[in-house]
Amino acid sequence: MRIGVFDSGIGGLLVAEAIEAALPQYDYLYLGDTKRVPYGNRSQETIHEFVGQALDYLFKSDCHLIVLACNTASAEALRKSQQEYLPTHYPDRRVLGVVIPMAEAALCGAEPGARVGVIGTSSTVESNAYGRELSRLDPSAKVVQKATPLLVPLVENDGLRYADPILDDYLENLDGVESLILGCTHYAALKDQIRTKTKARVYSPDEVVPEKLADYLTRHPEHESKLSRTASRTYEVTDLTDSYLSLARRLVGTDLDLRVTRI
Amino acid sequence: MRIGVFDSGIGGLLVAEAIEAALPQYDYLYLGDTKRVPYGNRSQETIHEFVGQALDYLFKSDCHLIVLACNTASAEALRKSQQEYLPTHYPDRRVLGVVIPMAEAALCGAEPGARVGVIGTSSTVESNAYGRELSRLDPSAKVVQKATPLLVPLVENDGLRYADPILDDYLENLDGVESLILGCTHYAALKDQIRTKTKARVYSPDEVVPEKLADYLTRHPEHESKLSRTASRTYEVTDLTDSYLSLARRLVGTDLDLRVTRI
Repeated sequence: MRIGVFDSGIGGLLVAEAIEAALPQYDYLYLGDTKRVPYGNRSQETIHEFVGQALDYLFKSDCHLIVLACNTASAEALRKSQQEYLPTHYPDRRVLGVVIPMAEAALCGAEPGARVGVIGTSSTVESNAYGRELSRLDPSAKVVQKATPLLVPLVENDGLRYADPILDDYLENLDGVESLILGCTHYAALKDQIRTKTKARVYSPDEVVPEKLADYLTRHPEHESKLSRTASRTYEVTDLTDSYLSLARRLVGTDLDLRVTRI
Repeated sequence: MRIGVFDSGIGGLLVAEAIEAALPQYDYLYLGDTKRVPYGNRSQETIHEFVGQALDYLFKSDCHLIVLACNTASAEALRKSQQEYLPTHYPDRRVLGVVIPMAEAALCGAEPGARVGVIGTSSTVESNAYGRELSRLDPSAKVVQKATPLLVPLVENDGLRYADPILDDYLENLDGVESLILGCTHYAALKDQIRTKTKARVYSPDEVVPEKLADYLTRHPEHESKLSRTASRTYEVTDLTDSYLSLARRLVGTDLDLRVTRI
């Protein structure tokens, strides 16, 4: 069975590529909901509905384990999926989010009571998923969250050269944080630019998630043993245009093949 | 019966507000598909599917005439709706787009062979709907089109203060056009900024569409007579968050009431 990687769009390809490089032996199915991207400004009910449809599709497509690479999806829908949907529909399979791994990474090695910054979509920040998780792991942590809604459009529309003044404003209130979580898959494309602007240690999902997934599979041989190993890769999206294909290839390589599917 | 105004999101509120001010006596139903906005990067099939659902909903909600305020929807789906959907489902009702009125306005008064610029979403530009319409009206017109995909996110995410360098780049290739069509409802929010950067006459949908609709109703009393006149206004969206509500109120006024509906 395969590992599914889900993102609201194609930003998650950066995370999928990093996972596949770290754990190349497994079979992967990537799903990007390009027909309805972005999720970051949608309501909790809508995000839950969309994520439910994506999980259904990936499980029916022979995925044993699904990584919700999308922070918005992880923040809004992971817990409800794990508590309500999985036990009744696929009790022996697993859905892993990115919020817990990112929060753990940001606190690992930091002093207790550290100041931790989080940037993400409006919906991720409003959900307070990072705030809850960081406080659970270290009740004395000081969490500063900031919605940075223009960063996804900049990455998606070839706008990185306009990012400087926008990043300066977004990062202004985060002065003095020791760790900074990039709480959105797309932000991996901006990590170098962000690192030149802050003294904080920057945690990017494409660097953190593969390591945490490898660790999870080592600790859970009962799930690892269900995974097939033919190193196959399939990339699917719910809608495809020339601009999306060229963006995807700019992000992860010119030989990428994207198929359209209905979920 | 009512006048329906449809947009992919809430940018169309600027056009709806201008129509309601110009023709206050009629009853209006605004529908914004905020659950799936933006349409500008989606495929033609997907846009057609979404617009079909919106038309169905508005006709069932007692609209006699629908203005597709969304340029992407007008460019991609209007003709097909008029040729395939209306005749079989609602032969006595009407759907009006914005591409033809905007193209007519931009050519009216211009010399034959004028250079006309169009800015819009990727999908509107790729559809070449403006190119086709302008060439039909004046075969000697020289049309220059430019996709400007960062402008919608700037308007939607309180980013107008970052627009200057982006507009400078986008308008660079449009030097020398005599008329410039703002081919997206959201761009009405940027019209003053754009007018400081170009010598061209700028045509903005909130200024053009109300006048053209008034003219249409005068020329078509058989449709005008179907419209009720209680000056009611209803604003509906397919998904609602605090950010959308505050953006909508920033655009058109603090007393705006937005209802959520399923389409």
